[in-house]
Amino acid sequence: MNRKMLLYIVGTLLVLESVLLLVPALTGIIYRETVTWTFFLVSGICLAIGLPVRMHRPADTRFYAKEGYVCTALCWILMSLFGAIPLWLSGFYNNFVDALFEIVSGFTTTGATVLSNVEELPHCIILWRSFSHWIGGMGVLVFMLAVLPVSGESSMHLMRAESPGPQVGKLVPRVRESAALLYKLYIALTIAQIALMVMFGMPVFYAINVAFSTAGTGGFGFLNDSCGSFTAIQKILITIFMAAFGVNFNVYFWLYTGDVKSALHCEEARVYLGIILTSSLIIGFNILPMYQGAGGAFLDSFFQVSSIITTTGFSTADFDRWPELSRTILVGLMFIGACAGSTGGGIKVSRIIIMWKTILKEIAGIIHPRAVRLVRFEGEPVEHEVIRSVNVFVMAYLFLFAGSLLIVSLDNFDFTTNFASVACTINNVGPGLAAVGPTQNFGSFSNLSKIVYVIDMLAGRLELFPLLVLFNRNTWRGRQY
Amino acid sequence: MNRKMLLYIVGTLLVLESVLLLVPALTGIIYRETVTWTFFLVSGICLAIGLPVRMHRPADTRFYAKEGYVCTALCWILMSLFGAIPLWLSGFYNNFVDALFEIVSGFTTTGATVLSNVEELPHCIILWRSFSHWIGGMGVLVFMLAVLPVSGESSMHLMRAESPGPQVGKLVPRVRESAALLYKLYIALTIAQIALMVMFGMPVFYAINVAFSTAGTGGFGFLNDSCGSFTAIQKILITIFMAAFGVNFNVYFWLYTGDVKSALHCEEARVYLGIILTSSLIIGFNILPMYQGAGGAFLDSFFQVSSIITTTGFSTADFDRWPELSRTILVGLMFIGACAGSTGGGIKVSRIIIMWKTILKEIAGIIHPRAVRLVRFEGEPVEHEVIRSVNVFVMAYLFLFAGSLLIVSLDNFDFTTNFASVACTINNVGPGLAAVGPTQNFGSFSNLSKIVYVIDMLAGRLELFPLLVLFNRNTWRGRQY
Repeated sequence: MNRKMLLYIVGTLLVLESVLLLVPALTGIIYRETVTWTFFLVSGICLAIGLPVRMHRPADTRFYAKEGYVCTALCWILMSLFGAIPLWLSGFYNNFVDALFEIVSGFTTTGATVLSNVEELPHCIILWRSFSHWIGGMGVLVFMLAVLPVSGESSMHLMRAESPGPQVGKLVPRVRESAALLYKLYIALTIAQIALMVMFGMPVFYAINVAFSTAGTGGFGFLNDSCGSFTAIQKILITIFMAAFGVNFNVYFWLYTGDVKSALHCEEARVYLGIILTSSLIIGFNILPMYQGAGGAFLDSFFQVSSIITTTGFSTADFDRWPELSRTILVGLMFIGACAGSTGGGIKVSRIIIMWKTILKEIAGIIHPRAVRLVRFEGEPVEHEVIRSVNVFVMAYLFLFAGSLLIVSLDNFDFTTNFASVACTINNVGPGLAAVGPTQNFGSFSNLSKIVYVIDMLAGRLELFPLLVLFNRNTWRGRQY
Repeated sequence: MNRKMLLYIVGTLLVLESVLLLVPALTGIIYRETVTWTFFLVSGICLAIGLPVRMHRPADTRFYAKEGYVCTALCWILMSLFGAIPLWLSGFYNNFVDALFEIVSGFTTTGATVLSNVEELPHCIILWRSFSHWIGGMGVLVFMLAVLPVSGESSMHLMRAESPGPQVGKLVPRVRESAALLYKLYIALTIAQIALMVMFGMPVFYAINVAFSTAGTGGFGFLNDSCGSFTAIQKILITIFMAAFGVNFNVYFWLYTGDVKSALHCEEARVYLGIILTSSLIIGFNILPMYQGAGGAFLDSFFQVSSIITTTGFSTADFDRWPELSRTILVGLMFIGACAGSTGGGIKVSRIIIMWKTILKEIAGIIHPRAVRLVRFEGEPVEHEVIRSVNVFVMAYLFLFAGSLLIVSLDNFDFTTNFASVACTINNVGPGLAAVGPTQNFGSFSNLSKIVYVIDMLAGRLELFPLLVLFNRNTWRGRQY
């Protein structure tokens, strides 16, 4: 374990966080808010700790997969601990666990809140919540790789550990250029959404927050009814942008380089859009009797499907009161999640496709035992290594899910609430069903349950293994260098 | 596809069923019940169809895994269709779908019923229900292999397709001897239970039914409160026998051959007993405040844990009213299920152990990339083929679960009811939570949902692939011989 290199990167992360905290701090100054000092204070603390820690760039830069996982997990935990302090000091949260839950929900782009009234929050806190989605969506380490010269050897392992999906999301041969390119596309799409939202009548501050939340597929809002009171055209815009941020960013890279054919043939994106279309139509017809006209029903069904499959978690209606078929489809979409290489969470469409094709291959193998068959995805045979990683991911996911469900059941809420709340946190969705439905919040859980949800949200965002490696005692044994 | 051989085995199965149907028929004669004729009628029909079909033993006995799966699925479906007719004709069931649900629930050892009052049933129907558990528990094809000379080539594939677990449950080199030995152990244990139940005050007819239900880990009862009104000692006996029938029968084989050391070191059995003990203690303490004394609480907790993990489904208390922690543990046990090579259902303890160790191996592989590691189980390295089959089983299981949940949600019951009812049928448990809790039944579901449950029960008992292969159109293409 290269502890010196680990410290150097963690220190760099803290310096970066101290800069990021200036964004809500400046917002607080603009709106002359009293809690602004908390952001300046924590920004200063991060700088004071981060700078000395990253003072000496270690000579030995050996950095393996293990270090990549440990470093990613450590960075996310520290970033959350420091990011929670301003919320805690602001007085709007009951205790530090609540503040930690909220900011982890932010960074992991979950969007579940412990607050029952978000409309009383000052602008700087609203912005810090939305901004945390935006940072966490594409990844803070990917951002660090794009803007700071960290280390050649470590960069690939960091990117691999932080980026979602069964395969590595490298666009161009060099990691730094890949990271920069991803952020360029990300920023361009975010700016486009802000501009369009403002054009269609949304105040600039709101537009920025909605766009940050949408881009990161987070879901924190600034109104108690989430997006319920927006105009129809604004809802349609958000629907489209949510769906767009759930697409594998490879597609935008191909479009950017003019390779329209590859973009149109992306298997994962096609299946993803197919699921959105099918689910929205079924739900639309299912909820039709509850609406005055088809327009409202399909507006809500497309919005909600787009919001849940991308694991954003915005809502325009209380879908907890929809018929059971619609609710069950939404729960299913929570698990499927968005495309790999997007900002969305969940199991990811590509993993679902590979799982499905693995089963078909097994059946074909029984029927024609002598034929050699390969699982093909995106036109290429899938390597054995990838199939294995998908399998192991699903296994670990099931164990974490079951364990979490068991611990939170101590709070004695009903099974639907518990199941939905674990599903919503591990898949980084936000609102669930019953006592964690879109009109409810996570405030009434015990601190123990909230800590379980914090772990689930981090595990979901980082796809389990960074945390499992960090907390394995064998990781910390053996030779240090 | 060797259709002639397939027909020959299916015909043999029907002849066997016509003999098995004489057991309830004779019971009906003893108790002078009017519905007895239905059993004689169907027994005659089975013989009339079966005999001509198996008249000619085909010369070409080629029989591959594909034929094994198809034949097993076909036999179970036909056996259920014919077995449902006496129930349907008896007039105690609303329609044929209800009767089919009931007998599939019997053969697959699920034990879920559509009836609200089982106490009005005549003795012959009570016995047919319990007897179907006993036949289905160890497997009707395994029975056929033990008593009838079928075919050398086909026997292994049939045994493999019908026996639960990730590895093949062959005890001795020859399949026929293995099958006979399994049934000898099975019969001995069943007789032991009947004798003990009678010794402790249970009428003989009741003791036979309880023992059939326990041995097959089925769960059909003859009283509306299941086992609630039995004496404490009778409950303890049933608890012990349920747990015993959930143990891998290899253990009894080792004990039978005097290899006590192997029996005591069986990893699966040790983990299984560990789970029973831990779960019972946690639930016991959790429900303690609901009871007058610790005795009653722990009697019920051990009984219920033993009943659910073995997927029997008997109950002595309305566990749906227990605290959420206890309910969640029970739901977890439904999925874990009993040992492979037992009569119980669920995912099976051995698969859970292999899944868990696969995750540990993955983490170890990240920490020490150059060390070669193997998943070890029962002291041996697990073959890659077995790990792959466990993975593919879990994937197919998840898809079937999600698809079933979606279809039954059309009935608009609550999420807990739907989730528990799919979990209870696919794992062959029986009673679940909420509207399918131990004091409720499956009668209020639509026919569509009941057919989904029938498929889930069969898929669960046969471990998915026989049905998937039967209904794959590629199975029926290509050369016939």
